[in-house]
Amino acid sequence: MKVNIAQKLGFPENSKLLIIHADDAGLSHSENIATIQALKNGLVNSYSIMVPCPWFYEMAVFAKNNPQFDHGIHLTMTCEWENYKFGPVSPLSEVPSLVDKNGHFFKKREQLMKYSVPAEVEKELEAQVEKALGFGLTPSHLDSHMYSVGAKPDFFDIYRGLGAKYNLPVLMSEQLMNMVGLDPKSNIQEGDFLIENAFVGEFKYFENGRLTNYYGSVLENLTSGVNIILIHPAFDDQEMRGITVNHPNFGSEWRQIDFDFFSDQKNKIILEQHNIELITWKDISKCMNECRQ
Amino acid sequence: MKVNIAQKLGFPENSKLLIIHADDAGLSHSENIATIQALKNGLVNSYSIMVPCPWFYEMAVFAKNNPQFDHGIHLTMTCEWENYKFGPVSPLSEVPSLVDKNGHFFKKREQLMKYSVPAEVEKELEAQVEKALGFGLTPSHLDSHMYSVGAKPDFFDIYRGLGAKYNLPVLMSEQLMNMVGLDPKSNIQEGDFLIENAFVGEFKYFENGRLTNYYGSVLENLTSGVNIILIHPAFDDQEMRGITVNHPNFGSEWRQIDFDFFSDQKNKIILEQHNIELITWKDISKCMNECRQ
Repeated sequence: MKVNIAQKLGFPENSKLLIIHADDAGLSHSENIATIQALKNGLVNSYSIMVPCPWFYEMAVFAKNNPQFDHGIHLTMTCEWENYKFGPVSPLSEVPSLVDKNGHFFKKREQLMKYSVPAEVEKELEAQVEKALGFGLTPSHLDSHMYSVGAKPDFFDIYRGLGAKYNLPVLMSEQLMNMVGLDPKSNIQEGDFLIENAFVGEFKYFENGRLTNYYGSVLENLTSGVNIILIHPAFDDQEMRGITVNHPNFGSEWRQIDFDFFSDQKNKIILEQHNIELITWKDISKCMNECRQ
Repeated sequence: MKVNIAQKLGFPENSKLLIIHADDAGLSHSENIATIQALKNGLVNSYSIMVPCPWFYEMAVFAKNNPQFDHGIHLTMTCEWENYKFGPVSPLSEVPSLVDKNGHFFKKREQLMKYSVPAEVEKELEAQVEKALGFGLTPSHLDSHMYSVGAKPDFFDIYRGLGAKYNLPVLMSEQLMNMVGLDPKSNIQEGDFLIENAFVGEFKYFENGRLTNYYGSVLENLTSGVNIILIHPAFDDQEMRGITVNHPNFGSEWRQIDFDFFSDQKNKIILEQHNIELITWKDISKCMNECRQ
């Protein structure tokens, strides 16, 4: 879908538009509190919630009480952690191909690709959206934990279909598709709305608590069009260290860095210096709906 | 069942026997780590695991790798927390009378008493034991979160029946029955094994982080027979404060006090000074089985 979001929103055609998006809300108390603080006092202006996770309820209450903040559903089919486990919101007997022998989600997209049946993927992802709606959430978008919806073309079609069914924009980007090995050429369809640039850090930038100014550099070098930075703010506290034990990639240290950078008022100045305009998924949704009319 | 456990275990008939028991393992990472530390380095010598809770898996791995520690199943039918929610291990469609509209356990025993059907209670509690066994746990006993099995005579019979079915001792005590309003006279049957004295703190002893030497006094005044002290060790950290928000009774401050008292090596001396002998549920189980033969 060719939509010049910038003009629709009243900005010049070549504006640098940016969503600063916190993934993984609902994962843990640490993730919730950091996300809420980064929304209220920091630079984060959109987030998405993992419905199957233990701390979903706390975040859902926040979302209901704070509808001014853009929130999506972070569709979840994987649980990458060693000791902290969760599984489908659907009864296990209805989605057996999505879980390991203990009834938990698989750790890796590759397992999903190998074992999971599309009909069960559809059932579970729809159940997650329905559970969120049942809680009274008013989601602004759909996206996907570990971009697992890109594990297979079939799954990606289901993802697109959910967006259409619920009239919600879905996060699609060539970078993310490439990241998970889904060929953009054969899987992008006419009518898909694509985020032009999606930024997710790589572990090498954050190893040993060292920050190589990755985010500063992203902001300074942003180009025109619709951009999104995907972060995972949380605290490097005992809970988060317990969850991410033996999994330093997207571990608690990195998450603390995400929180620190995007809570630091000084970094707001970079946005101003580089004429970056913050937009939300609700803005995108509005533009897309206007285009359809 | 009249068993003189002391003599069976080789102690004088009037010995003061004591289990120092940590409830609520599996509830959270904080609870797990505190329980493990209090077992390894402190005075705690038995614990029980909440199978439906988010951190069950971590504790189950510990239990499997550390069979030297007595561990039971903390049968769970209530979730008393404001923002942290969990529900049955059974499919919701099979135990609808155990949950609120969101599929979570009720907060209070009174709701359980009002809404829950015995057949579903039995199904769910058995499913919790089966899940634990399926994980390879070798439980030493059954007990009950918030002693909810005492909400109704029917439930108490189910509880007794589970002990018989799995050949495990179940925690029965007149104090606990009185605590939850179950008449001991009409609900204790011939053949039931009763703990002579069960000690659970009351909030008034722990309010405002103040410790009125409740536990010291329990130890100093212990009488002969089989005694159990039920504690809930955890840290007063961000995770636990999040779980126990607006619920200072059994809140994070009290749990930290439990951890501190029963991790303090100095308090081991009280046991020696007062000739208190630590025993476990496995000891009780062995005695009961010998009596049956």
